[in-house]
Amino acid sequence: MGARYKDKNWKDAMRVRIDVNNMFEEYIGEKHGIKPEEVDEMAEKIKKAHQNINKQHTEGKLGFIDLPDSQNEVVDEIESYAKENRQNVENFVILGIGGSALGSIALQTALNDAYHNLRDTDAPNIFVPDNVDPERFKSLLETLDLKKTVFNVISKSGTTAETMSLFLIAREYVEQEVGLDDLRNHFIATTSKDSGKLRVIAQREGFKMFYIPDNVGGRFSVLTPVGLVYAAFAGIDIRELLAGAAYMKKLCSTPKVWENPAYINGTLQYLAYQKGKKMSVMMPYSHSLKDLADWYRQLWAESLGKEKSRDDEVINVGPTPIKALGATDQHSQAQLYMEGPYDKVVNFIEVEEFDTDLQIPDLYEDIEGVSYLRSKTLADLLKTEKRATELALTERERLNATIIVPKVNEFTMGQLFYLFEMQTALVGELFNINAYNQPGVELGKKYTYGVFGRNGYEDMKEEYYNRPNKKGKYII
Amino acid sequence: MGARYKDKNWKDAMRVRIDVNNMFEEYIGEKHGIKPEEVDEMAEKIKKAHQNINKQHTEGKLGFIDLPDSQNEVVDEIESYAKENRQNVENFVILGIGGSALGSIALQTALNDAYHNLRDTDAPNIFVPDNVDPERFKSLLETLDLKKTVFNVISKSGTTAETMSLFLIAREYVEQEVGLDDLRNHFIATTSKDSGKLRVIAQREGFKMFYIPDNVGGRFSVLTPVGLVYAAFAGIDIRELLAGAAYMKKLCSTPKVWENPAYINGTLQYLAYQKGKKMSVMMPYSHSLKDLADWYRQLWAESLGKEKSRDDEVINVGPTPIKALGATDQHSQAQLYMEGPYDKVVNFIEVEEFDTDLQIPDLYEDIEGVSYLRSKTLADLLKTEKRATELALTERERLNATIIVPKVNEFTMGQLFYLFEMQTALVGELFNINAYNQPGVELGKKYTYGVFGRNGYEDMKEEYYNRPNKKGKYII
Repeated sequence: MGARYKDKNWKDAMRVRIDVNNMFEEYIGEKHGIKPEEVDEMAEKIKKAHQNINKQHTEGKLGFIDLPDSQNEVVDEIESYAKENRQNVENFVILGIGGSALGSIALQTALNDAYHNLRDTDAPNIFVPDNVDPERFKSLLETLDLKKTVFNVISKSGTTAETMSLFLIAREYVEQEVGLDDLRNHFIATTSKDSGKLRVIAQREGFKMFYIPDNVGGRFSVLTPVGLVYAAFAGIDIRELLAGAAYMKKLCSTPKVWENPAYINGTLQYLAYQKGKKMSVMMPYSHSLKDLADWYRQLWAESLGKEKSRDDEVINVGPTPIKALGATDQHSQAQLYMEGPYDKVVNFIEVEEFDTDLQIPDLYEDIEGVSYLRSKTLADLLKTEKRATELALTERERLNATIIVPKVNEFTMGQLFYLFEMQTALVGELFNINAYNQPGVELGKKYTYGVFGRNGYEDMKEEYYNRPNKKGKYII
Repeated sequence: MGARYKDKNWKDAMRVRIDVNNMFEEYIGEKHGIKPEEVDEMAEKIKKAHQNINKQHTEGKLGFIDLPDSQNEVVDEIESYAKENRQNVENFVILGIGGSALGSIALQTALNDAYHNLRDTDAPNIFVPDNVDPERFKSLLETLDLKKTVFNVISKSGTTAETMSLFLIAREYVEQEVGLDDLRNHFIATTSKDSGKLRVIAQREGFKMFYIPDNVGGRFSVLTPVGLVYAAFAGIDIRELLAGAAYMKKLCSTPKVWENPAYINGTLQYLAYQKGKKMSVMMPYSHSLKDLADWYRQLWAESLGKEKSRDDEVINVGPTPIKALGATDQHSQAQLYMEGPYDKVVNFIEVEEFDTDLQIPDLYEDIEGVSYLRSKTLADLLKTEKRATELALTERERLNATIIVPKVNEFTMGQLFYLFEMQTALVGELFNINAYNQPGVELGKKYTYGVFGRNGYEDMKEEYYNRPNKKGKYII
């Protein structure tokens, strides 16, 4: 496709924008709408947030900010590795969970054909089991020709229970199929450069390794080898992806809230939360962006759902992200969004141009209720439904905004990833929380370690088994 | 598989139960927990709700209550039709949206192999596009051998814009492939018996027709031909499915809340909502129940999200259903559920026995942090993680309950469908709303009709185009 991302005009034509008109009083009414002055009044807080983000970045944290334009060497290595090995690979399987899987799934759904794995193409078939369901994983291992399959095992620490279990099982299946000597050609390890158990295993087995920078957390890692290795195998242009992120980084570098797409949307989401809109719906009208909403759901929930502020005050904060899909969910969730409590903000995603379209043929002219569809296209229908839903929500005084994507491609996906990451960083600052940890999931993990007999977790085992007895009369 | 559903012992062993221990003060603490007395105090309201449900049913409404045990003729017809035609069908495509698709998707994910469409089996490949995305639908039509494909077009009215558009396009593609004479062998129409546009079209074209009872709404229709025709083609035992629903119907026929699984869970969800837990998470720890959660999401949102009470009072009520998946979403949403606001109830689904399991092999004995996984199985891991998460949530005073499913099969799926339908009916009564309409989505539909030039919607077109001008400065 050439390096079109070096063409300024093309890039500007592909710029992702946010339309926040329907967040404001003028359109939504004074009861629920936000006043522009409320945004202005946030200026000082936003300035401080901006400084804080920059300060942390200068201190070597928030590595995600560097990813768009610091990875030349990494990209060279990934591209040449993929080029060399792609031809022999029929199936590419990602063994990872959460942040190690969701970015690749989002890329797959956005940039591959919707029925990629059923079609005969140059690119390998792609699988992301993303769970430890035994039925599903066994079926996968039995469905694939393991002689032609590569597994990318992704875990920074190498102790993620789900990922390592899948790896151990896959390793055994593959060894049985190809023998011990050939094992190294079927596994890639994507992990920390300097520490961790997966590194030790990969070195021992001679697996190819790619590295996740230590200052990039899992949910911010799609533009590291976590997502890029998969992308290169899938035939996705990773330079264009990074160029998109770099383009958005520039747009998001100003502290001026009215000019910064991440800051304006983040600020409005924050203000809406303060007004009792505790849920944030992401609703793309495009099947290919369906799993971007799922990726965002992790980013938003895990970053912003926190018990304590940075000052150690108990605040139990966090908007709940909800993924939805237009037009499908008009037939499932729209009734609630239109008439239920005023507790949501809807972020639509509208795609301006689809790669292809389908004309609705001119049939059944005499049948009223069907004939009006004639000569329209599916893209017409999808876009009209989006705007009709937007208008209806607005008339019902429901806050909504629209992220406008000129076309779904590598460049716009790169923009979207960076946009939402920076938006999340800002809102974390506004809530005065640490958006980069996840202390709330430790307890559950420790119980599992205890039950499974991991050294050092004997107490947890005891606590797990000493849970209060359940009452039979409460099991119906 | 034989008629095991006629064996009382087997049925009792397959009984779906609900464990609501962790909804109560005794386990959750007094700040957020529900007191058993609060449930007792609901007795009068529940009795009235029960009477109301029975009254509506006696009046010929709420047809879903009749489905488990009134469909012998329909089942005979579907089974013999599927038996006759199944062999020649390589692909079975459902053209429907919302309630016409979600039940079949739930059945497919639950009862077919996880990689069904990639494996060579007796049953046809199954596709449910469920949206009007042009890229995805075009890819489907080009991927399938249309000579060996049957489309089941599902719409009660025959005017659902999305379904009819897909049908019109599919019809043209199929005609080009097989010719006009053979068209009738590639389409089934599932629609109203007595009215509607799809009926007219099907009669004209000579399509096989199946009927949706007029007193069964879309989101309650999975156990009508809407779901059953698909199921029969997929090799699912529809008699066992209905037997499961009949079994649960019996369990849910008592007005005694402490003995009725639908009523106890419905009542507790209702009480939790009154205490500010406005979100209801459905989180199965089993990939195969993932899309049951999505089916439930429509049922719950569209039935209970209502502006007005039956007395025409503006109440803007409705809990927001959220689908999640264990263990995957422990790495995405659990942080928020553990530490965020106290605004959720989690309904776990735990599967007691999986169809198959995978042993984690005994490798890397010397590597601490990996070695503790040895000799366990994936099912062990999944179940332990569920219980660990449950325990951690409970310690953090977060309301949760567990739906226990002995095994995922037709009989338990039938139970689950009926259980959630009856639970929804009860909660609708408790909120004093009409749980069977969806007035909130009409406005958006009308705008689309207007823009597309459907007769009678000229006003809506005008209103659509007269929307207030958006401000450029709010598009960033």
